[in-house]
Amino acid sequence: METAIFTANNVWMMICTGLVFFMHLGFSFLEIGLTRQKNTINILFKNLFIICAGLLMYYIGGFNLMYPGFGENSTGIIKFAGFGLTIPENGLSITYANGGYTYYTDFLFQGMFAATAATIVSGAVAERIKIGGFMIFTIIYVGLIYPIVGSWKWGGGFLDTLGFYDFAGSTLVHSVGGWAALVAVYLLGPRIGKFDENKNPKPIPGHNLPLAAAGVLILWLGWFGFNGGSVLSAEPGATSLVLVTTSLAAAAGGISCFLFSTLRYKNYDITMFLNGILGGLVGITAGADQMSPNDAVIIGILAGIIIVFGVSLVDRLKLDDPVGAIAVHLICGIWGTLAVGIFGKMAGIAQFIIQMEGIAIIAIFCLSTSYFILYIIKRTSGLRVSEKEEMEGLDQHEHGMNAYPDFRSNEH
Amino acid sequence: METAIFTANNVWMMICTGLVFFMHLGFSFLEIGLTRQKNTINILFKNLFIICAGLLMYYIGGFNLMYPGFGENSTGIIKFAGFGLTIPENGLSITYANGGYTYYTDFLFQGMFAATAATIVSGAVAERIKIGGFMIFTIIYVGLIYPIVGSWKWGGGFLDTLGFYDFAGSTLVHSVGGWAALVAVYLLGPRIGKFDENKNPKPIPGHNLPLAAAGVLILWLGWFGFNGGSVLSAEPGATSLVLVTTSLAAAAGGISCFLFSTLRYKNYDITMFLNGILGGLVGITAGADQMSPNDAVIIGILAGIIIVFGVSLVDRLKLDDPVGAIAVHLICGIWGTLAVGIFGKMAGIAQFIIQMEGIAIIAIFCLSTSYFILYIIKRTSGLRVSEKEEMEGLDQHEHGMNAYPDFRSNEH
Amino acid sequence: METAIFTANNVWMMICTGLVFFMHLGFSFLEIGLTRQKNTINILFKNLFIICAGLLMYYIGGFNLMYPGFGENSTGIIKFAGFGLTIPENGLSITYANGGYTYYTDFLFQGMFAATAATIVSGAVAERIKIGGFMIFTIIYVGLIYPIVGSWKWGGGFLDTLGFYDFAGSTLVHSVGGWAALVAVYLLGPRIGKFDENKNPKPIPGHNLPLAAAGVLILWLGWFGFNGGSVLSAEPGATSLVLVTTSLAAAAGGISCFLFSTLRYKNYDITMFLNGILGGLVGITAGADQMSPNDAVIIGILAGIIIVFGVSLVDRLKLDDPVGAIAVHLICGIWGTLAVGIFGKMAGIAQFIIQMEGIAIIAIFCLSTSYFILYIIKRTSGLRVSEKEEMEGLDQHEHGMNAYPDFRSNEH
Repeated sequence: METAIFTANNVWMMICTGLVFFMHLGFSFLEIGLTRQKNTINILFKNLFIICAGLLMYYIGGFNLMYPGFGENSTGIIKFAGFGLTIPENGLSITYANGGYTYYTDFLFQGMFAATAATIVSGAVAERIKIGGFMIFTIIYVGLIYPIVGSWKWGGGFLDTLGFYDFAGSTLVHSVGGWAALVAVYLLGPRIGKFDENKNPKPIPGHNLPLAAAGVLILWLGWFGFNGGSVLSAEPGATSLVLVTTSLAAAAGGISCFLFSTLRYKNYDITMFLNGILGGLVGITAGADQMSPNDAVIIGILAGIIIVFGVSLVDRLKLDDPVGAIAVHLICGIWGTLAVGIFGKMAGIAQFIIQMEGIAIIAIFCLSTSYFILYIIKRTSGLRVSEKEEMEGLDQHEHGMNAYPDFRSNEH
Repeated sequence: METAIFTANNVWMMICTGLVFFMHLGFSFLEIGLTRQKNTINILFKNLFIICAGLLMYYIGGFNLMYPGFGENSTGIIKFAGFGLTIPENGLSITYANGGYTYYTDFLFQGMFAATAATIVSGAVAERIKIGGFMIFTIIYVGLIYPIVGSWKWGGGFLDTLGFYDFAGSTLVHSVGGWAALVAVYLLGPRIGKFDENKNPKPIPGHNLPLAAAGVLILWLGWFGFNGGSVLSAEPGATSLVLVTTSLAAAAGGISCFLFSTLRYKNYDITMFLNGILGGLVGITAGADQMSPNDAVIIGILAGIIIVFGVSLVDRLKLDDPVGAIAVHLICGIWGTLAVGIFGKMAGIAQFIIQMEGIAIIAIFCLSTSYFILYIIKRTSGLRVSEKEEMEGLDQHEHGMNAYPDFRSNEH
Repeated sequence: METAIFTANNVWMMICTGLVFFMHLGFSFLEIGLTRQKNTINILFKNLFIICAGLLMYYIGGFNLMYPGFGENSTGIIKFAGFGLTIPENGLSITYANGGYTYYTDFLFQGMFAATAATIVSGAVAERIKIGGFMIFTIIYVGLIYPIVGSWKWGGGFLDTLGFYDFAGSTLVHSVGGWAALVAVYLLGPRIGKFDENKNPKPIPGHNLPLAAAGVLILWLGWFGFNGGSVLSAEPGATSLVLVTTSLAAAAGGISCFLFSTLRYKNYDITMFLNGILGGLVGITAGADQMSPNDAVIIGILAGIIIVFGVSLVDRLKLDDPVGAIAVHLICGIWGTLAVGIFGKMAGIAQFIIQMEGIAIIAIFCLSTSYFILYIIKRTSGLRVSEKEEMEGLDQHEHGMNAYPDFRSNEH
């Protein structure tokens, strides 16, 4: 490949890597913004752990588990290419076999991706999970489960051979995180006070909505890298189309979700606007390179409406998901994956069925593995903090700290 | 055009698009930081609406209204190229006729720009405008007024033929927003408590200066894309000169504004430092590609001094502009546009007069159209919230929420 | 050089420039987060001053002092190439002699770097230094001391001839700032209340840990530009290796620091996690291009452990460093510089000795010059605020403002 193009591709992929890394700040802000002050340090700690431990686990084995080199038309299910990064033989500049960028860029981009799957779970289990148990779960899920699922499609495994399509991870990242979030929320139970004696849900407001809004804007920017980098080159037509479909779906998701929820609840609810944007982003992710701009707007509008129903469904199932992760990442992840069979260049009944098969297979695998991991943790070290700790806050008990220790208001 | 250069240009333009998008977080932080806590959700909501609805309006018609394809040496005033994005015929990678990047990149970069015009207004009208009316205004201003003005210069219309120069939008973006801000502030009237019984202005402090400062640093970074992307390619000499002039003007504006205001008011006032940086950025925008680094420093220094007088002038006119948008965007926008005729490669009395003509024509158009739109809204749905709502905060009344619902200080 | 490669290189270097600029927001958030609310405006003000005045000083003379054009195999110690930027003769696009990017990009990238040295000092002296004195110090240190030291290695001076290696500034940036921080902390003395009557250190908690955590994530992202841009081109192999070593060292530093401090203090201390990440980043900086990924992990792990001992050492020396700048930037800066002689491609006893020599020479120069500057300031305008001012907060006294003037908690 020509040097100049290779350099430009690699620059783009490195930028996208930085943007996906930056999403971890977005997730952190969103999570702490939508939860109570007394658990803020705990959430930040978990998010720092996810990005650091996630990257190290992906380095140690995850990358080689996810891209094992299955053969053409493989029905490969599992294979492991070894520990650590193999330093390319003929110097550092070696072209990665499958793309117009280096082996190191490939690892780092994929590593930043991997850590996001655990972050999705983090939001759903916030304010009541034991930090030790969560850390064990993160290590296994990022180091083992996520790469195995990824290898089936992006590593050239059996789902790829089947024809399953997931451009940037509506299923492979968002639903993989979302299924585990569902299991974790079920095993943990709701936070104290989330449901009243009649089992009706009560809102537990977060403590810093400006940070939550900032988190969503940062995530939108990060998605430029998440989807834009999934082109795996800087090919101008494909990358720029992907940024357009991504942004239009986000905008449409935000507007439709806020309009629909305003009609329903007579209230300009900013958390609905925020989750609508995220829903649009997750929804477009599976087919961002296959859709026309008009398709993207429609997918975003529907994602926004799905969010309103999804949040309400989670409540009705008596599940407690403080940040709406199940509606955003799981339900809109499914929606986006199905949308590949409904809209755009791949639309068709055959493709739709394949998309459903892929979703189902991954659902079964993620539900069972995350249930197994979390159940073991629950039965051994325990999954949930004590009632006293939950009431007084995890920051005080697990960290001996306060998020705003010297903060004073100006009322006196 | 050679593929590798085209790819590099397109990568740069996509990055700049991301940076201009990121400015919306900068504007949000600046606005909420400089206003009271009780209106924080409302401001965030408006800013989310601006970026989402602005992008959709620009998609539906704004882009085709702004770049209608006026002929060479046109005296075109208005033309409309149709609804939605035209999918390029020969595949996604097609080169956009006028630049070294794709059609999709062009749309998204310009769309992110368009939304900033409404954001400027948002800051000036904060804490008292009805959200419904503001949303209607945003839709019309971003979807119709901004693209028409833009078409006159950037779309190849009559101001372009006239020789008017505005590199990245001191007038076409900042003053277009600034004139509407002036009209809106006039029609709305000052916030309760802004002027005492003797009509003397009283400061109404904001609630979160760290976020305001963060907003300005984010805006400075965003300006790398705003001005750097206005080169419309990655041409190394032009882009890097633009980043240098932009950053030097920002630095000089900040220093001169804080020094001058400290001399005048005997106080290291951080809001002056912040607005000085922004004034320098707006001031360099019209001629960022025409100036030497020395010119940029002088333009920045003068912008900083203009801010001190501008903020004081707005007060003396009994106008209430909570974030200083009129001084920053309108007055420094005019200053920057005139500076093209005073400094740099285009300096000259003839150019200076043309710059004045452009400013005047756009002023008349923006003042009259924004007055018309806002007056209609005022007479129909109403522009200003009730006194009770203003006193108790827009968050409570329009959104039924609080920005920091669970926030507790540590005094007890 | 071929145009397309040159363009791609220049794009990468401009992005890295933006990322290094963005580090100033990271430093600001970290500093205000770890200090008390009453000094927040003061710290933000200092940080705005550093970036603005630093850039202007570097423009006026620093750049030409740092890159004076020493001859090949020079033993040059000081030389000055003139004031301001020399506008390249043959048009704007001229290639900078030594690299694949423009002269303007070179200036701006290096200018953003220069300002970070003063920022390191800012954190250590927080909450008690007079702003006037700090501004004078910043001007001299960024305009004079930093460029002289830089010229010895990066400007082709005698340390370069000696064979001293410092890829991106573990010593040339971080220790240069760190030595001055050490002197300043010594001359200033500890904050009131930092040590009890028995000289035992007492923690003085900061006021906003979410912002501190955000600062560290922003700094990590900024380091993509700090280290990635230090390749001085977009050469794919070198840049992508550097991003991998940088990120792995950060991740390993964070994990090892938190694990080690948890073992020692039985507490999941988030500030240790944060400083461990920073320690890993500073530690890899000198040899980010010379290390294998495995080396990077080891360097990071050791940096994390060094932080735990370093923070405790600073306490035992009765020094008061509110943000841990000495442990992070000075001690890990030394560690990273020595690591070049221990790990990676340059490892060897001869190199190790040269690294020690370089560290020692720069230590002597920075300690003596910063002592001289700060001592003069102390004897003339004074270095430390009055006891009353320190107790009541610098915001009130130097700025007449409050960082959160309208902030109200929701307890009542």
